[in-house]
Amino acid sequence: MSYVHLASTCFSEALGTHGLDRAVYDSLIVRAVEALEGLRARHADGSLPLLRLPAARDDLAALKPVAEDYRARFEEVVVLGTGGSSLGGRTLCRLSEDASAPRLRFEDNVDPHTFDALLKEIDPAKTGFVVISKSGSTAETMTQFLVCLAAMKAALGDGAAAHFTAIAEPGDSVLRRLCAKFGIDVLDHDPGVGGRYSALSLVGLLPAMIAGLDAAAVRAGAQGVLDLALGADDPETVPSAVGAAIAVGLAREKRISQSVLMPYVDRLREFALWYRQLWAESLGKRGQGTTPVDALGTVDQHSQLQLYLDGPRDKMFTVVMLACAGTGARIDPALADDDALGYLAGRTVGDLMDAEQRATARTLIRNNRPTRIFRLETLDEATMGALMMHFMLETIIAAHLQQVDPFDQPAVEEGKVLTREYLAEAAREAGGG
Amino acid sequence: MSYVHLASTCFSEALGTHGLDRAVYDSLIVRAVEALEGLRARHADGSLPLLRLPAARDDLAALKPVAEDYRARFEEVVVLGTGGSSLGGRTLCRLSEDASAPRLRFEDNVDPHTFDALLKEIDPAKTGFVVISKSGSTAETMTQFLVCLAAMKAALGDGAAAHFTAIAEPGDSVLRRLCAKFGIDVLDHDPGVGGRYSALSLVGLLPAMIAGLDAAAVRAGAQGVLDLALGADDPETVPSAVGAAIAVGLAREKRISQSVLMPYVDRLREFALWYRQLWAESLGKRGQGTTPVDALGTVDQHSQLQLYLDGPRDKMFTVVMLACAGTGARIDPALADDDALGYLAGRTVGDLMDAEQRATARTLIRNNRPTRIFRLETLDEATMGALMMHFMLETIIAAHLQQVDPFDQPAVEEGKVLTREYLAEAAREAGGG
Repeated sequence: MSYVHLASTCFSEALGTHGLDRAVYDSLIVRAVEALEGLRARHADGSLPLLRLPAARDDLAALKPVAEDYRARFEEVVVLGTGGSSLGGRTLCRLSEDASAPRLRFEDNVDPHTFDALLKEIDPAKTGFVVISKSGSTAETMTQFLVCLAAMKAALGDGAAAHFTAIAEPGDSVLRRLCAKFGIDVLDHDPGVGGRYSALSLVGLLPAMIAGLDAAAVRAGAQGVLDLALGADDPETVPSAVGAAIAVGLAREKRISQSVLMPYVDRLREFALWYRQLWAESLGKRGQGTTPVDALGTVDQHSQLQLYLDGPRDKMFTVVMLACAGTGARIDPALADDDALGYLAGRTVGDLMDAEQRATARTLIRNNRPTRIFRLETLDEATMGALMMHFMLETIIAAHLQQVDPFDQPAVEEGKVLTREYLAEAAREAGGG
Repeated sequence: MSYVHLASTCFSEALGTHGLDRAVYDSLIVRAVEALEGLRARHADGSLPLLRLPAARDDLAALKPVAEDYRARFEEVVVLGTGGSSLGGRTLCRLSEDASAPRLRFEDNVDPHTFDALLKEIDPAKTGFVVISKSGSTAETMTQFLVCLAAMKAALGDGAAAHFTAIAEPGDSVLRRLCAKFGIDVLDHDPGVGGRYSALSLVGLLPAMIAGLDAAAVRAGAQGVLDLALGADDPETVPSAVGAAIAVGLAREKRISQSVLMPYVDRLREFALWYRQLWAESLGKRGQGTTPVDALGTVDQHSQLQLYLDGPRDKMFTVVMLACAGTGARIDPALADDDALGYLAGRTVGDLMDAEQRATARTLIRNNRPTRIFRLETLDEATMGALMMHFMLETIIAAHLQQVDPFDQPAVEEGKVLTREYLAEAAREAGGG
């Protein structure tokens, strides 16, 4: 396994009345077993394609030439898309250290100012685009696509089409119709893999491959976590089941309303944002669902920790620690020659981060805040795949415990309809339309 | 005023039983008047230096040559510091569009991997550093400083000192001792201005000036908001007092535990992070304090909105809208020639953002979620100064209503002590230190 999951410090044995009661947990873990059985069945019959992604390799072979073509032709690749079409790729690409890879840029907002700047900054001849919309009709993504296509056409004429690749589910959609018209390649988004569960599909992995990452290793990391979950006789050995039962139990029994994910290393900043969508959109339903809060190691010690330690007892904490003692630049004792720096002289940057992450977890626990810990030995493609699979399974199992559908998002439709109404109004007022 | 503050949609008149009861609010606004009187007195006697910053100009004149020197000599400026030493400057610098300014880079974490990359990437001859630690002893900032100083000394010898400027409060500190030893200039951090309230001091404004921003305009924007608060006869005319009474009232009466700040434009992403620290660290005390949650316009519609609309009723929302209809690139009707795009053809990117921000606010309100709105006509230095002063005053007034000290952070000390213990242990085990 790519990580160690320590959760005993969420329970009443460790935290007294502020921890989760074992009886509550036991009643939930029994139901987590049902969820695991459901996953096993859906893996077997193929009805949840997400569970088949980790073992797939054929699709990666098909993606490879696309990624290599983009790497060969472009210095910059702009990924257009929002929500699940953006966060998985961003999370993975943060691991890239391939100096020869194109610069990846994820545009997830429809900010007129940002797009004006983007269109000024790019060199059309050296810029490629990946346009991702599962439905093929997302308003924000269509807008991004159309203004970028116009700018690229103005610069390159019909040659612009070869700078775009779209990803959408099969079947008729406006994105597919436009791509057909303009001669732009479209790759298939699996209709059975929702945006926030798509990081292990081409949605996350095409950008990752363009950035020079090993997509098979991402999937292999995910496979290890999945195998453990599908093969386990005892749910206590499945961290995602344990995590789901704790999260739902704490929400119910201890009125925990917020789930703070606190990695320490910069390369996991985007991962925490990816988690936010996964958790919020899957579980925030019918009056239930805790709020996912992203925090970052030493930064938020100086921003949020006061609230975490002394504010309301309405949060659970997941601290993600990477082994880093002894790594990084060493503080030169000759420069740090001052009594006040005795604790730092001769230590490395990694020593400080290591001490800080342990100190924060310990302090949270001493203050009886439910805290679980992920310990990572390394942070590479396999680890990231493993973490992603862990949290996808944990979310699906938590949804089973909450009795909600982890794969829908029924409440966001109203805003979309209103947006169209407001745009139509504006068009009428402008006499256009 | 640089913004319009609309808060009626937080009350029971608009939201029924889910809104704030007027009687509760009235009892709080009476106490907000006391807070305003306290601020008036502390402005008059100078005992809260934050309140005198907006009118100050002499210090800016003194900073100008420092900023100009950095602009002339460096292509990249790295700001070392964490929490309040970083977030204010970052927030302001996001406004910069000065292509001739050095690239500003805010390093707020102590990630060994990030620092290894930083030290490889920079060109020592063309890189300057600003080292910010109010106490002059912050472990993270000292570590950052020492490894960067070592790298710069290795490249430039004694010439490295001229590439550093430190900011620390007067009086003895290890940062000041080292700077004296190595010949590094130190500027004074006002001891009476805490880190999270320091954006309008040199802590935020020196980076802003290096980035080519108009620091006097930032302060003028803040002054307008402050004048209104200090001069008002009726607290209902003071948005920060109204906002504080609503936030504390909703927390008490409606069990609102989270305060979501949701700007739409990319240039306010960092502002939401700055707000997180201000609100959390000032108010998260003695079991009280709501959790500040940063969200971003259209991005989080596709990530958090499902939870916001259909999850627990434990959040209040502050939507920050910038007038942007008609701005940005226009969608070419010839490209968007498809029935499904009738609502977008001929519209601009700004039209879509404008429609989205209004639609989201409206949808939240229709679902009876307490929602207030900031309307901005422009986003410039004055607007940012105004928003910062608004939220600093709102936080101070909310602290008065909660009966906590907005300026301390007593709970974070334990973690700092433990960090030192762990480092000492590691040193003993390594046989060093």
